[in-house]
Amino acid sequence: MKARVHVMLKDGVLDPQGEAVRHALGAMGFDGVEGVRQGKVIELELADGTPEARIEEMCQRLLANTVIESYRIETL
Amino acid sequence: MKARVHVMLKDGVLDPQGEAVRHALGAMGFDGVEGVRQGKVIELELADGTPEARIEEMCQRLLANTVIESYRIETL
Repeated sequence: MKARVHVMLKDGVLDPQGEAVRHALGAMGFDGVEGVRQGKVIELELADGTPEARIEEMCQRLLANTVIESYRIETL
Repeated sequence: MKARVHVMLKDGVLDPQGEAVRHALGAMGFDGVEGVRQGKVIELELADGTPEARIEEMCQRLLANTVIESYRIETL
C-alpha cells in the first residue's frame, strides 16, 4: 500500500523558503502572487494493511516537527 | 484563489533524502517500509481567475526542475 504524508509549517510560523519563492515569482513578472507556503510531501511504500495509527506514529516521531509543523496523512 | 503544486523527483532519479528517511524509519523499528520518496508541495495564494496555464508557466520556469522533477497542479 501507498501513503502520502503532507507536512506544512503551521500558520504563523515564518516560512523564508516560501517567501523567497514569492519574491522570485514577482521578480519574474508573475503578478498577483499574494502568498507562498512551501512544505514537504513524503510518499511511503508500506506493507499492505499497515494501520493508519502506525503512519501517525511515524509522523509524530520522525516525519514532522509537531512544534512548528502540521501534517496530513492520505492513504492511496 | 489557491493552488497547490506537488513536485516530485522523477522515477529513476536517486532520492537520497527519501532514502535517509527510509533508513531512519527502519532503525526506529518501523518494519515494512519498502520505499520512501520525498518531494515538495508549494501552496500559492493567487489573484482570482489566474489561468492554469499561468501556474504551469511558474512550474516550468521556477518551481520545478523539469529535467529531474515532475509536477502536478491542483487548484483549490
